[in-house]
Amino acid sequence: MNQDYIKADHWSIIEEGFDVNQVKSSESLFSIGNGAMGQRANFEETYSGPTFQGNYIAGVYYPDKTRVGWWKNGYPEYFAKVLNAPNWIGIHVTINEEVLDLFKCKKVENFRRELNMKEGWLSRSFKATLQNSIQIQVDSKRFLSLDFDEVGAIQYQITPLNNDAQINFSPYLDNGITNEDSNWDDKFWDVLSVDHQDHQAFIVSRTMKTHFNVCTAMQSHVSLNGDVLNQDKTVFDTSSFVEFQYQNHVNKGDTITLTKFGGYITDRNHDKNELISVAKETLNKVSDLGFHALLELQKTAWSKIWDRADITISGDVKAQQGIRFNIFQLNQTYLGTDARLNIGPKGFTGEKYGGSTYWDTEAYCIPFYLATKNQQVARNLLAYRYHHLDKAIENAEKLGFKNGAALYPMVTMNGEECHNEWEITFEEIHRNGAIAFAIYNYHRFTSDYSYITEKGLEVLIGIARFWHQRATFSEAKKQYVILGVTGPNEYENNVNNNFYTNYIAKWCINYAAKNIDIIEKDYSSDFTRIMNKVKLSKEEVSQWKAVADHMYFPFSEEKKVYLQQDGFLDKELITVKHLGKSQRPINQKWSWDRILRSPYIKQADTLQGFYFFEDDFTMEELERHFDLKMILLRKN
Amino acid sequence: MNQDYIKADHWSIIEEGFDVNQVKSSESLFSIGNGAMGQRANFEETYSGPTFQGNYIAGVYYPDKTRVGWWKNGYPEYFAKVLNAPNWIGIHVTINEEVLDLFKCKKVENFRRELNMKEGWLSRSFKATLQNSIQIQVDSKRFLSLDFDEVGAIQYQITPLNNDAQINFSPYLDNGITNEDSNWDDKFWDVLSVDHQDHQAFIVSRTMKTHFNVCTAMQSHVSLNGDVLNQDKTVFDTSSFVEFQYQNHVNKGDTITLTKFGGYITDRNHDKNELISVAKETLNKVSDLGFHALLELQKTAWSKIWDRADITISGDVKAQQGIRFNIFQLNQTYLGTDARLNIGPKGFTGEKYGGSTYWDTEAYCIPFYLATKNQQVARNLLAYRYHHLDKAIENAEKLGFKNGAALYPMVTMNGEECHNEWEITFEEIHRNGAIAFAIYNYHRFTSDYSYITEKGLEVLIGIARFWHQRATFSEAKKQYVILGVTGPNEYENNVNNNFYTNYIAKWCINYAAKNIDIIEKDYSSDFTRIMNKVKLSKEEVSQWKAVADHMYFPFSEEKKVYLQQDGFLDKELITVKHLGKSQRPINQKWSWDRILRSPYIKQADTLQGFYFFEDDFTMEELERHFDLKMILLRKN
Repeated sequence: MNQDYIKADHWSIIEEGFDVNQVKSSESLFSIGNGAMGQRANFEETYSGPTFQGNYIAGVYYPDKTRVGWWKNGYPEYFAKVLNAPNWIGIHVTINEEVLDLFKCKKVENFRRELNMKEGWLSRSFKATLQNSIQIQVDSKRFLSLDFDEVGAIQYQITPLNNDAQINFSPYLDNGITNEDSNWDDKFWDVLSVDHQDHQAFIVSRTMKTHFNVCTAMQSHVSLNGDVLNQDKTVFDTSSFVEFQYQNHVNKGDTITLTKFGGYITDRNHDKNELISVAKETLNKVSDLGFHALLELQKTAWSKIWDRADITISGDVKAQQGIRFNIFQLNQTYLGTDARLNIGPKGFTGEKYGGSTYWDTEAYCIPFYLATKNQQVARNLLAYRYHHLDKAIENAEKLGFKNGAALYPMVTMNGEECHNEWEITFEEIHRNGAIAFAIYNYHRFTSDYSYITEKGLEVLIGIARFWHQRATFSEAKKQYVILGVTGPNEYENNVNNNFYTNYIAKWCINYAAKNIDIIEKDYSSDFTRIMNKVKLSKEEVSQWKAVADHMYFPFSEEKKVYLQQDGFLDKELITVKHLGKSQRPINQKWSWDRILRSPYIKQADTLQGFYFFEDDFTMEELERHFDLKMILLRKN
Repeated sequence: MNQDYIKADHWSIIEEGFDVNQVKSSESLFSIGNGAMGQRANFEETYSGPTFQGNYIAGVYYPDKTRVGWWKNGYPEYFAKVLNAPNWIGIHVTINEEVLDLFKCKKVENFRRELNMKEGWLSRSFKATLQNSIQIQVDSKRFLSLDFDEVGAIQYQITPLNNDAQINFSPYLDNGITNEDSNWDDKFWDVLSVDHQDHQAFIVSRTMKTHFNVCTAMQSHVSLNGDVLNQDKTVFDTSSFVEFQYQNHVNKGDTITLTKFGGYITDRNHDKNELISVAKETLNKVSDLGFHALLELQKTAWSKIWDRADITISGDVKAQQGIRFNIFQLNQTYLGTDARLNIGPKGFTGEKYGGSTYWDTEAYCIPFYLATKNQQVARNLLAYRYHHLDKAIENAEKLGFKNGAALYPMVTMNGEECHNEWEITFEEIHRNGAIAFAIYNYHRFTSDYSYITEKGLEVLIGIARFWHQRATFSEAKKQYVILGVTGPNEYENNVNNNFYTNYIAKWCINYAAKNIDIIEKDYSSDFTRIMNKVKLSKEEVSQWKAVADHMYFPFSEEKKVYLQQDGFLDKELITVKHLGKSQRPINQKWSWDRILRSPYIKQADTLQGFYFFEDDFTMEELERHFDLKMILLRKN
């Protein structure tokens, strides 16, 4: 999807003009989140064109049974995925009995969408001419509160422009939702109850298998030209749905407004028997404040985030918009207040990547959170992996490792591996290095050594044990080799002696050994406690060190460069410049074997690995690697 | 499943004693087939224990939409699979209104099953005591006729032993069947009609998507102590089922027999509007002959097969039984009379491997058929690939090859690739060599050159073009390399310069070039016709030859051995002897990365490749390779 239709702006993502082909793309781009929940920018009213409904609650997942072509021993039984959660944003709207549906209007004009990243809200406005020729102006605004992170608010306004009109609003809750990404077309939710009282409605439901209990709730009222109407409503409900129906006669030029508060109360944070009462209290609190006061709080909260996190770029508005979009999305996805949560690669923008945790958290996100938030946030991310250490040890045992060796999963929700492509799950093991390197980064940035004594060293030991066992001695080379890996360049599978992997293995062992020495010397009671727990001997550490000290790195004597992996120079070297546009992106144009045979410039990933090492690797060695890149770039 | 329960016997597969845990295994082992259809050894009567119903019609398949974890460009859209066909063998049996069901009897004694491979029939006998305390002796025999390959016959006999009994037989046809192996739980059959007339019944149904029309038919009668009864029957039918109900009062010691003929008439061989009338004729013909005469024909037909195909082994009954089981299964699966058919790896014993065509046909089966049948049979198997040449060229184009290069699929039903594991589909390309080598084998064995002039050369040219384009020039080695392959040892994925693959590539080019020369010299009109069709220039052939002449083969100077692939000697070398039993089979005990890192003795596959080359490879070179194996075996 070409996303060039977004207008350049310093602080906002803006779309102008209604195009049905952009709806799904914009639903992703204009997504909103508050760390605890998030949602795609679906329209509140009915939309019968192509759309992808999505609401997500952080930490509420489902272990979907996997489906593969040919099962391999060691594959995990399930792929955890974020669940599409009940819809609380929906509002059925009719104008003189015609359903408002942008896909079916005679005409849509002045359509404009704005995601205001500075203040944390999403708005939409348009002028629509319906099939019944009534012309209306619609203005909606919504946000997910940072201050009350279990709720969001919507203000939905309609002004009839060319005639008086009967405008009916039916705000609803809908638990009849499914995942687009479902392997066996299973149902994911059981509805336990559908209730309502006064202006509030509640659906309590439970996820299958994982048994998360969630109360989806809403409260609504209608105003005319700013004055709240105390009108009657009709309630319609089914076994998984409830709506309030408000009927309004609106004069031409008057503005009728539906205000709706809604969200999720879950048993991750509350007693499961008190979900409805907590929901009532929460809705009362935010509705007492009112939409505008809540929005002011939202602006203040985002302003505090930006004070520490903003990056300004002068002279290039699109770059400025782009970097702020990245910062905004990271903060929408994860705010660091809950050590049980982590950072899904796509945030709350859709189902792809299942909302699960990847090594990207340690490799790319922790440096960001270190620099822009209280150190407790990065510490929470580290603690997440500490809490999964036992599972990482189990995971390594499943693959034949022993003695407390830990292999962190490629993809996880609760510490168990969820990924099942052998070349990734079993072979992209450098991820384990990122977990250790994040501990190093945390200490380097904060100078807080307490994390390492309290939790970090156990993780470092589990990881060092893994590398020690994973490396094997080559009789031919008289050095330790690491065979059968996929490096950070995922387009080279099952290679031998990937430079990055071998180097991070060596580094992890040395870093663990160094910290064992420090803690033995300076924190003797911690040392005793940890050693009693992990049963580590001096002799074992010296075996690790033998591997680190005699690690093999592929090197070309002829070209005097380190190689990405064994045999790299046998490849046909093609630069991106010489790859016609018709060939790109190659993962959509080439078959996998062809991609694997030809190096190309996703190599940047590998370089990224090297940047981390600047402190530890001599510049001369680094330059040799860069030389290789230069050779690649110059060839042909 | 341990299959040691099978009794040793020179000519038969025999099971004695009833064990519910062996039922599914025996259903496979005792399968019967006649090249045109086949079936698992399911019981005719009701069985409510663990069972896997299976009937299969050669060439009737379904393109099931594939399901993979992460889609890769170049994957085929579907996996063709043999369909579970309507059941014609079923007979509901009641004894004094109690359903005969071996899973529910009070007692089962003297259970015996025999698959007589010499004569081509399956029998079963047992004494059962029902919950109602009636004791019966049951003897059944069935076979699929070689002479009339659209039908089979069943003789099902019951003798009440301790009392008179009301014994009802209800032979039926059932189209309400599904595939166990279905990716999307789709239905595979539409029923078009359910009919019956006199003693015959017919269900006409059509496969979805592929639209094969099949008439499943049966005819039955009952005899008492050998005399046919002309009794009344009741007909019961539904939209996908029809049965005849016969009620019999049988005195203690008398024997009541149901004789049933049935099978499939398909529009692969008949006009689709005449399926029922052909079925009537066919059933009339075999029922006029009668069960015993048809069985005598069966014995004669199998005896002719064994006259040419038998291998005798003295002094080892289990080995004798084993080799005859192999020969029997090959003949049950494929008889060479229909060039549209091929050899599914599991024959008609189940759904695994989808009944599709693999390179095993050329590598392993053609030599067998060459030696044991008229040469037309092997020629039919070669012609199968000639008819798929256009599809093999399309397949190569999908992977980026051009100019008529052909890559035969890993798995296919109609010439299109059906497999979707990148390391196999895209990389196990040595299969292409097997297609060419089979042509060489055919000519070597039969001295019939006409196949090469008529059809074979075009195939050889397509394959040579593939290898020419697939090899790349290594600037580092100054030789041609073949990167990113899976050799015949499927436990080494995405390796570089697999010896077998590089060698077969070189061989294919040389063999194609040699035959181009012969045909140019000795068959000039064929030469002109073929060259006009494939547009091949002398210059292109010399480019091929450059690749063949400068092909790289991995070699260890130190050990003076050829290596299976680049980097082979970096591995930890473990012999099977040193792998505890608890570790085997490693594909069920080890994770895939561990298998890939450790060589083990599936290496036999690779050796098998080498045997083929004895004529072309110097013995010295071969011995070097065997030396390597010895090193592996001696180590530790």
